[in-house]
Amino acid sequence: MRIFSYQGRRGKGVGVMAGDTRFVALAEAAPDLPGSLKAVLELPDGLARARRAADGKPAEHEISEIVFLPPIEEPNAIWALALNFKLHIQETGLTTSDKYPHLFMRHAGSLVGHGQALRCPPFDVSQEHDYEGELAVVIGKGGRHIPVEKALDHVAGYCPFNEGSVREFQRHNRNFGLGKNFEESGSIGPWIMTPDESGDIAKQHVITRLNGVERQKSTLSDMLFPVEQVIHYLSTGYRLRSGDIIAMGTPGALPKPAGEAHDPDRQRGRHKVEGKLSMRPGDRVEVEITGVGVLANPVAADEPVAYRVG
Amino acid sequence: MRIFSYQGRRGKGVGVMAGDTRFVALAEAAPDLPGSLKAVLELPDGLARARRAADGKPAEHEISEIVFLPPIEEPNAIWALALNFKLHIQETGLTTSDKYPHLFMRHAGSLVGHGQALRCPPFDVSQEHDYEGELAVVIGKGGRHIPVEKALDHVAGYCPFNEGSVREFQRHNRNFGLGKNFEESGSIGPWIMTPDESGDIAKQHVITRLNGVERQKSTLSDMLFPVEQVIHYLSTGYRLRSGDIIAMGTPGALPKPAGEAHDPDRQRGRHKVEGKLSMRPGDRVEVEITGVGVLANPVAADEPVAYRVG
Repeated sequence: MRIFSYQGRRGKGVGVMAGDTRFVALAEAAPDLPGSLKAVLELPDGLARARRAADGKPAEHEISEIVFLPPIEEPNAIWALALNFKLHIQETGLTTSDKYPHLFMRHAGSLVGHGQALRCPPFDVSQEHDYEGELAVVIGKGGRHIPVEKALDHVAGYCPFNEGSVREFQRHNRNFGLGKNFEESGSIGPWIMTPDESGDIAKQHVITRLNGVERQKSTLSDMLFPVEQVIHYLSTGYRLRSGDIIAMGTPGALPKPAGEAHDPDRQRGRHKVEGKLSMRPGDRVEVEITGVGVLANPVAADEPVAYRVG
Repeated sequence: MRIFSYQGRRGKGVGVMAGDTRFVALAEAAPDLPGSLKAVLELPDGLARARRAADGKPAEHEISEIVFLPPIEEPNAIWALALNFKLHIQETGLTTSDKYPHLFMRHAGSLVGHGQALRCPPFDVSQEHDYEGELAVVIGKGGRHIPVEKALDHVAGYCPFNEGSVREFQRHNRNFGLGKNFEESGSIGPWIMTPDESGDIAKQHVITRLNGVERQKSTLSDMLFPVEQVIHYLSTGYRLRSGDIIAMGTPGALPKPAGEAHDPDRQRGRHKVEGKLSMRPGDRVEVEITGVGVLANPVAADEPVAYRVG
């Protein structure tokens, strides 16, 4: 099941996809279910009830008539992993623990939904607003002290995630802080794919395309810390809540396509990895998780600043 | 004005202190104001209306009959500063930028209100659950791209903050991650003191007491990045929202009191700063911001874990 949150002409709702362009509105198919996807996930049988309600119903709505919202609008926490793929560790030159997942947090306002514009900072604030294609895990059943072997029972489903990062600010200090939290600098969506249909997520791939050109591609089995290990670790201290998001880290860059000219204007970072380009207003970025979906966003200029930074 | 959130017998409410032990319930004095303090702060004249409503009203309620909640229960973001006092930088042995404030995030569930128990992890999970007495800034008027000279206009008030930290987990990686986010490991409260009564906050002191003994004490003028600089920096990328919290960083440890025996059991960290002790169940911790208030919490054992960590 592909379940999502949307803004329609008559308000917000939860939808279930049927085919490529049509969906069932849960407010019509299951008026007894809560109106927010987070509240659906908080019910022990919420997803099962949504599935039963949508099954076989006529899909009377077109996705062209709605705006995709982040599937969970106000999660209690958005956790994100740094440095969870060997190639990305190498290209950043950073070090990380091989025993413990490397975690930080984002706030909900740093993300937009599928189809909405990522906000690229003005050039005098940042020249390195970078895509990071990632798998996002959405927590269904909450809990604490979750053993590895039970961890996947707590997963409601998976989404593509663009962990858009403002590198200069990320480098200001040891903690990434504001560099991972610019307003609307990243994205999540379009929907949550339930694990019964995604299959074993480790066998899927994450692929990032900038203006149609593949820039990242990796099997998810290359994640140094798989989903179940991260849930286990987090739950040592943190009580997972329904609707929580865990972004699983980004892979390294693909080599520059043959014949492509070097673009120094888009490679202003310290590390200048060939094939890794920063985003610019006018771009279109896609993050695909195979078996899950494609998250696509245009890139637009962020508002100008009224003062100089730094 | 000292304004706070509470849980009473008949539900949650917002109160205004009158004297040491009594308060005015806003639900009675100003029934037209919203029932949550965050929603009061979202109104341009919310604090002014609360003040007018409470002024001169009989304070009919006793604080012994209510439980203090964190003043803002669900802020959009809780930002916290690392390494904002020279002495604390020296005692940790860490480095930080002298140009940019060092920021990370906490989730709301990592904090309890005044009087509630801090949860100290079992010994096999952590032996270093440490207090960090800090000034917390609560944002009133939101905004982005806020110049330094206007930054203090966005402050609704100040609270004491105990930025309780689980050191072993904080050291797992470059980003502090889970080490700053154990459930109910820190605290905030009891109230928000408005700036008209706190006076120039840089002239106040932060004091931390463990079982009645002073362990940290510093003037807030020793903060390397003052409140207005941090608001300015954050607003470069982040849009501040009403009710957001910024914890301003902790000072260094005071010297061990004369005649006090060395306590190796409470100094199991890497750095073993004399005078700095980890918390243990049964302790009582206080964080005072002079001119603002005293935040006091007992320390209790966190729930045991069902597996070994690491």
